[in-house]
Amino acid sequence: MSTKSLFLIALGGFAALAEAGRGGGGKKPRNFIMVIPDGFGPASGTMARNWVHWNDNSTVGLPIDEMMIGQVRTRSSDSYVTDSASSATAYSCGIKTFNGGIAVNDDQEPCGTVLEAAKLKGYMTGLIVTSRITHATPASYVAHIYDRDKEANIALQEIGYTHPLGRTVDILLGGGKCYFTPKSTASSCRKDGIDALAIAKTLGYTIIEDRAAFDKDVKLPYLGLFTQDHMSYEIDRDPKKEPSLTEMAIKGLDDLHKATKESKEGFFVLVEASRIDHAGHANDPTGHLHDILEYNRAMNAMREWIDGHDDSPTVLISTADHECGGLTLGYELKGAPDYWFAPEYFAGSKASVEKLSSVWKASTTTDLAGFVRENIFKQYGVMAPTDAEISRAIALRNNTNDFGAFLGQALSARLGVNWSTRGHSGVDVTLYGYGINHEDFAGQRENTEVAGFVAEQLNLELEPITDRLRKNTSWVKDNVKAQPGQTPRLKGRDVAKHHH
Amino acid sequence: MSTKSLFLIALGGFAALAEAGRGGGGKKPRNFIMVIPDGFGPASGTMARNWVHWNDNSTVGLPIDEMMIGQVRTRSSDSYVTDSASSATAYSCGIKTFNGGIAVNDDQEPCGTVLEAAKLKGYMTGLIVTSRITHATPASYVAHIYDRDKEANIALQEIGYTHPLGRTVDILLGGGKCYFTPKSTASSCRKDGIDALAIAKTLGYTIIEDRAAFDKDVKLPYLGLFTQDHMSYEIDRDPKKEPSLTEMAIKGLDDLHKATKESKEGFFVLVEASRIDHAGHANDPTGHLHDILEYNRAMNAMREWIDGHDDSPTVLISTADHECGGLTLGYELKGAPDYWFAPEYFAGSKASVEKLSSVWKASTTTDLAGFVRENIFKQYGVMAPTDAEISRAIALRNNTNDFGAFLGQALSARLGVNWSTRGHSGVDVTLYGYGINHEDFAGQRENTEVAGFVAEQLNLELEPITDRLRKNTSWVKDNVKAQPGQTPRLKGRDVAKHHH
Repeated sequence: MSTKSLFLIALGGFAALAEAGRGGGGKKPRNFIMVIPDGFGPASGTMARNWVHWNDNSTVGLPIDEMMIGQVRTRSSDSYVTDSASSATAYSCGIKTFNGGIAVNDDQEPCGTVLEAAKLKGYMTGLIVTSRITHATPASYVAHIYDRDKEANIALQEIGYTHPLGRTVDILLGGGKCYFTPKSTASSCRKDGIDALAIAKTLGYTIIEDRAAFDKDVKLPYLGLFTQDHMSYEIDRDPKKEPSLTEMAIKGLDDLHKATKESKEGFFVLVEASRIDHAGHANDPTGHLHDILEYNRAMNAMREWIDGHDDSPTVLISTADHECGGLTLGYELKGAPDYWFAPEYFAGSKASVEKLSSVWKASTTTDLAGFVRENIFKQYGVMAPTDAEISRAIALRNNTNDFGAFLGQALSARLGVNWSTRGHSGVDVTLYGYGINHEDFAGQRENTEVAGFVAEQLNLELEPITDRLRKNTSWVKDNVKAQPGQTPRLKGRDVAKHHH
Repeated sequence: MSTKSLFLIALGGFAALAEAGRGGGGKKPRNFIMVIPDGFGPASGTMARNWVHWNDNSTVGLPIDEMMIGQVRTRSSDSYVTDSASSATAYSCGIKTFNGGIAVNDDQEPCGTVLEAAKLKGYMTGLIVTSRITHATPASYVAHIYDRDKEANIALQEIGYTHPLGRTVDILLGGGKCYFTPKSTASSCRKDGIDALAIAKTLGYTIIEDRAAFDKDVKLPYLGLFTQDHMSYEIDRDPKKEPSLTEMAIKGLDDLHKATKESKEGFFVLVEASRIDHAGHANDPTGHLHDILEYNRAMNAMREWIDGHDDSPTVLISTADHECGGLTLGYELKGAPDYWFAPEYFAGSKASVEKLSSVWKASTTTDLAGFVRENIFKQYGVMAPTDAEISRAIALRNNTNDFGAFLGQALSARLGVNWSTRGHSGVDVTLYGYGINHEDFAGQRENTEVAGFVAEQLNLELEPITDRLRKNTSWVKDNVKAQPGQTPRLKGRDVAKHHH
């Protein structure tokens, strides 16, 4: 049998199987929780579990291990390795698009998302993340634009100011305030004078800007932005200043539940553990680990929340958008019989590379060697840095990027983990589920199937939303499509054709 | 909530869940097919699928993708990264043991396997592999010894000659004849005068030594050994000399089915796609890819076999023992917008690194540059080697290991894939299933749970087998346990304690 015929046979079989696994005609959920651990690959999960094994002297799994139901294929329309924008568009709209595209198709036309469809059907909605709220993943649920980097535009779409459907998000929680303040203000990331916070207020949003305001009862809609840029890595977070992902998720569920108690429809919410990905890009095992553990705490808390709200049946699906960092576990080590992977080296690691690089650069010490040994290496779990490592650290002190890479590698080598890239990789990601009907989505899935499952469970139709979005052609021209002089990111496939 | 308390809570939840997912009290299978794609990690599957996407200009999945049901955790008793012996012992006996141990526990005491228990209960049994039949994975189903490298001993246990339970395997198919012939014969790997083939005959085995004999009808029990060492990689295989894994598997199923048609019990068979792992160790993407495609053909054929034998309900479970090579997919490439992973570079790759390294070393050409360009690089899919690559290839010609690593890297770089180790890695592996009751085993599992599932489905008890094996203390002393002057492999944990 040729490879070709084998795989063509497989196609038919799979379509039939996918059909059979769906639906079921039973009871439907009132609420849908979509949880994206950005950049969380298969090895990320194993690494975190093995750390817990060592730290607790146990052999139990992570909370997510108990919810594991399948696997997701992630390639985008123009690359075998996706970015967050394309993958989140698959999750929100159910289509493959090019890397960098935010809820638009390959022709840069907007596509209706499950969040927009849910809102228009009467559900309440939320976006709860630890990155800038304008970052690719949350953006792809409510904004439409050819380039993920246009975050100033995305901010205005997210609050409904430049969105043809108006305001579609009831809760926005995360970082990224700098895209909501006019360029005249300190730390602003905008290049215009637009005060998006003021606009959000006129659109009805209560603005939350600190921990104290977060802890109070606030009516929907609200917009909570705790930091100018991304929120802190979990390992670096000051709980007096920033809530945890778990706290934000549970407050969001409680508030959405309260607000929909009397209505026919429940809620749709996206919860993103955004910065697992950033630590992957930084090749920082410590940042990666602790954001993964926080993702697990959030998953565990949401599972308990679902169990505690039988009156409002909820389904939760969780899957990464892609792997990040090309993480692998285990070296061959001279003198070791087989393989070197030693999660015990995480034990003393108390801060991210991001934080320690900036502490090191900002230090005013005259004892550089002593400072870097005690306050940088040891804080990062490298308890006995070599003289060569200390010299190198001193040489790289003012080069935050290179020093960060060097510090991450110092711990990675001791742990016995390897990073093969500072970008994403193509491996399938793991699928988790909990609550009513989640088992209907078990097995291996294309990432585009996720939107269909949300739509089916909440009785949504995306096509009419897409039609409405595209009808407003001036909005598309001004906000969505690249205009002469602008281009969407170069297509991966086109590059591939021209490369050696 | 502290990390500690979170994960202790999780333990209780998981135990309850595992309990609920099991059993079901329904109909049981007559036959159990265990399929191990040795060294097949999550990225291996994605890479093979993406090659098929490119080659067929399609977006369909692999046959295994339709059978994906879960994930398996693989750590051994002495290392977070397992070897094949320890992992296969988890699959055969249901216990964690040290790396290198073949169906023995941490105290080097033998443990009863599902194959032995099945045979003694009246099932027929088989081991069908593409490695030496004495290699760690098949060995762990029927031999017991403290060191996987004692293959001369393992051969005698496998045919039942030195096994206290006698002959327990009805079909043995694979490579490794060199461990069955006395040291006086050419190519023998034995250091004694024992003629294991002659002994096997006296124990009732028909010996199959070539393709012609394989194609004939043969009565059970039979021992088919097609090569002295491992069988060929699928990409290098001469079908006139060696059957494919698919052919061996289907012949095995047919013969076991025929032989058990009139009996109360059916069969247990292990099918191993052994050399996916070897190509991972060699960091050879081509050998890896084509053994994965053959594993998929075998899985597809076995699925069809199960569908065609409703009269004899069969369950199939398939999972790797561990990842191998630390494979990741995607580079960051200067000039490319995002990520470089180009499976199209597999298109011209027609032989394994193993084969081409040996062709290169054996060549008698005077035009080294021309020969290596046309007969080595181009055969491996490197269509335009650089002058520097050709010079390096010429310099490494007589160093087969280094040349092999260099050639593998030349293609890997063009493909945009990375190997982080020439050993195994710790990532969880993917679980597949088909046939009656396979869904009872869905979800994430510890590798030790596999043996329990086999035992439950075939109504086997392993403890009485373990008792019988341990009673025969002189056999244990001579065959199983390390004696003064011998040691089992150094424990990974002991090394970890002393390294930093």
